[in-house]
Amino acid sequence: MDRVTLTPAATAVFATVLTRGPISRTEVSRVTGLSTAAVTKVVRPILAAGYLDELPVGRASAGSGRPAAPLAVRADREFFAGVWLRAGELVVVLADLRAGVRAAHRIPLPGTSVAAVVAAVARAVAVLGAPGALVRRVGVAVPGEVDRGSGIVRRGPYPGWRDVPLAALVREATGLPATVENDVRALTVAEQWFGEGAGTRSFALVTVGEGVGCGLVVNGALVEGGYGVAGEIGHVPVDDTGPRCHCGGRGCVEAIAAEPAVVARIRAATGRAALDLPGAVALARTGDRAALESFAAAGRAVGRGIAAMVNMFGPEKVVVTGDGVAVLEKDLRAAYGPQAFGAAGGCPLIVEPLPPESWARAAAAVTIMALIGLGPG
Amino acid sequence: MDRVTLTPAATAVFATVLTRGPISRTEVSRVTGLSTAAVTKVVRPILAAGYLDELPVGRASAGSGRPAAPLAVRADREFFAGVWLRAGELVVVLADLRAGVRAAHRIPLPGTSVAAVVAAVARAVAVLGAPGALVRRVGVAVPGEVDRGSGIVRRGPYPGWRDVPLAALVREATGLPATVENDVRALTVAEQWFGEGAGTRSFALVTVGEGVGCGLVVNGALVEGGYGVAGEIGHVPVDDTGPRCHCGGRGCVEAIAAEPAVVARIRAATGRAALDLPGAVALARTGDRAALESFAAAGRAVGRGIAAMVNMFGPEKVVVTGDGVAVLEKDLRAAYGPQAFGAAGGCPLIVEPLPPESWARAAAAVTIMALIGLGPG
Ligand SMILES: [Zn+2]
Ligand SMILES: [Zn+2]
Repeated sequence: MDRVTLTPAATAVFATVLTRGPISRTEVSRVTGLSTAAVTKVVRPILAAGYLDELPVGRASAGSGRPAAPLAVRADREFFAGVWLRAGELVVVLADLRAGVRAAHRIPLPGTSVAAVVAAVARAVAVLGAPGALVRRVGVAVPGEVDRGSGIVRRGPYPGWRDVPLAALVREATGLPATVENDVRALTVAEQWFGEGAGTRSFALVTVGEGVGCGLVVNGALVEGGYGVAGEIGHVPVDDTGPRCHCGGRGCVEAIAAEPAVVARIRAATGRAALDLPGAVALARTGDRAALESFAAAGRAVGRGIAAMVNMFGPEKVVVTGDGVAVLEKDLRAAYGPQAFGAAGGCPLIVEPLPPESWARAAAAVTIMALIGLGPG
Repeated sequence: MDRVTLTPAATAVFATVLTRGPISRTEVSRVTGLSTAAVTKVVRPILAAGYLDELPVGRASAGSGRPAAPLAVRADREFFAGVWLRAGELVVVLADLRAGVRAAHRIPLPGTSVAAVVAAVARAVAVLGAPGALVRRVGVAVPGEVDRGSGIVRRGPYPGWRDVPLAALVREATGLPATVENDVRALTVAEQWFGEGAGTRSFALVTVGEGVGCGLVVNGALVEGGYGVAGEIGHVPVDDTGPRCHCGGRGCVEAIAAEPAVVARIRAATGRAALDLPGAVALARTGDRAALESFAAAGRAVGRGIAAMVNMFGPEKVVVTGDGVAVLEKDLRAAYGPQAFGAAGGCPLIVEPLPPESWARAAAAVTIMALIGLGPG
């Protein structure tokens, strides 16, 4: 941050005000474990640099003679571009320092070469404001394998993309610091800091769409996986006599519940070879039995996969999200309930739709956390 | 510890020497992130109190004029009783400060009332040595639901056991500090500190027997579960058309692979109503098809359950253990291999048998870690 040294204590204090503010210094001290004197010392330069506001004193805090002036992050102190790379287009948002979305755009992709995509990202950021003036950093979210530490896209999302140093290329093209993260992991971080996961120690996010993905937070940290693989709920085997999966397994959640699998089953049963997902949803709404059964099987597979995850790691909350998740909700819950083990059944599933802008906002959230010292980039 | 103040730094240094020693101060500094000066300062009183030895200098460390005297924990500075409560008997070990087993006994249980079991534990500890003299602390491992923080057994292992304050009762009966932990979690801690898990950041232990259990270590800490439930790999649903489980689910790993399920299938197929597990293993060795198929189904269910766990958490290593695990190994690996996702397939499965004394040693390991400030009790 400008004119602020990011000691670990400063990072902890700022993250606490960012995710829990408005909040008193006393409360920050309780959450961070720092003394109130240490909190006051850390806060002073952050206040002076304009990242925090002291809110008007509403009332004296109970049992204390001193008035408590709550601290809040000044949302418009910095702005960030969040970009989601998807098939055919970029989704771009301008987010403030509290990850509030101030503007959103969709920009068609003229091509999928690395050069074409990087140029499109740079144009998208320029649309949001003059580099260095309004926009302070760029976050990119990618559906694919990403090494966040180095900012390299290992694989995907476009044909032939292998080991693309995307963070460095975006940095060069925009003149701004950039972070690159896998999109499911980015969305998990966004929910952890600015959404349903705020204040929890353990938390899971499940996304259902073209694939079925999951991000896990345990003891406050994203699970990374010893071999770079984690959260692959899509490849949890839930049906021993189920269909083969592209991964080589059998009866994986994704082989049953990903959108292409759902549509393929309805195509096969109805003979409508050109059916797409909106068509399949419409068909189910008419009461078509094949369509209803295909969505029911998908909901059941996701529900059992979530139960597997909850029984193993016991998150405090699960957010389930994705384009078509509303259609699956009833069957998903019906399968989850009896399969959640004992007290784990108390873990709430929060099913919420996911507009495309959420992914771009998640990209911005990752780069906000990097600004305050949480994570590389 | 006697005459040693357990600051967080002292705990970190002692744990490092305990699990990685003999080790130089320089190396301790690297592992703990403390300065070498801080390590030297912390080590002095621990050495003086007799918990550490300085080993003879073998050779000067490379590139340094100073000889490096490696540090090691003095194994016989303290001794611990480890007790495993199981059906019909207690398994008891005397363990040294490095969790080395010095003696082992099995003691028949005269009854399963709380008073009878506590009295038997006290007798078992007395057999190992005079309280307060030889044995310093007692660790108890229990197959059941345990709140380790309060030392209360919430449920099991004997009929009618509910909310038993076992740690307090054992403390009263023996005059020694006591810890109580669930047995699968205790075994996970023992492997994490003194076994295959040493030096890893993430690690899983899977046990197959009367039930199928799992302990998970993520970012160096045991996964506790937001609702007290975690590691329930036994209730991961792997077969949508599989048998009903006692938990209310369908096709759970445990409903297919726990010993009673394996034996029940063979009884039903062969009409041998009195068959037990050793009989079932013997039958499989003769090539009996029903027996072979039942064990194969069990191995396959465990293998798919482990793949589900590995795909979600990405541990660096998995230890698979239990009485009859050798019989399952081939089918377990055959099911695991194709179901492990991408690079997660690199995660090794270490299949090892588990003598009953291992559970008692695990109970001792938990109380050793409590002595040095890791965990309550
Ligand atoms: Zn798969
Ligand atoms: Zn079950």
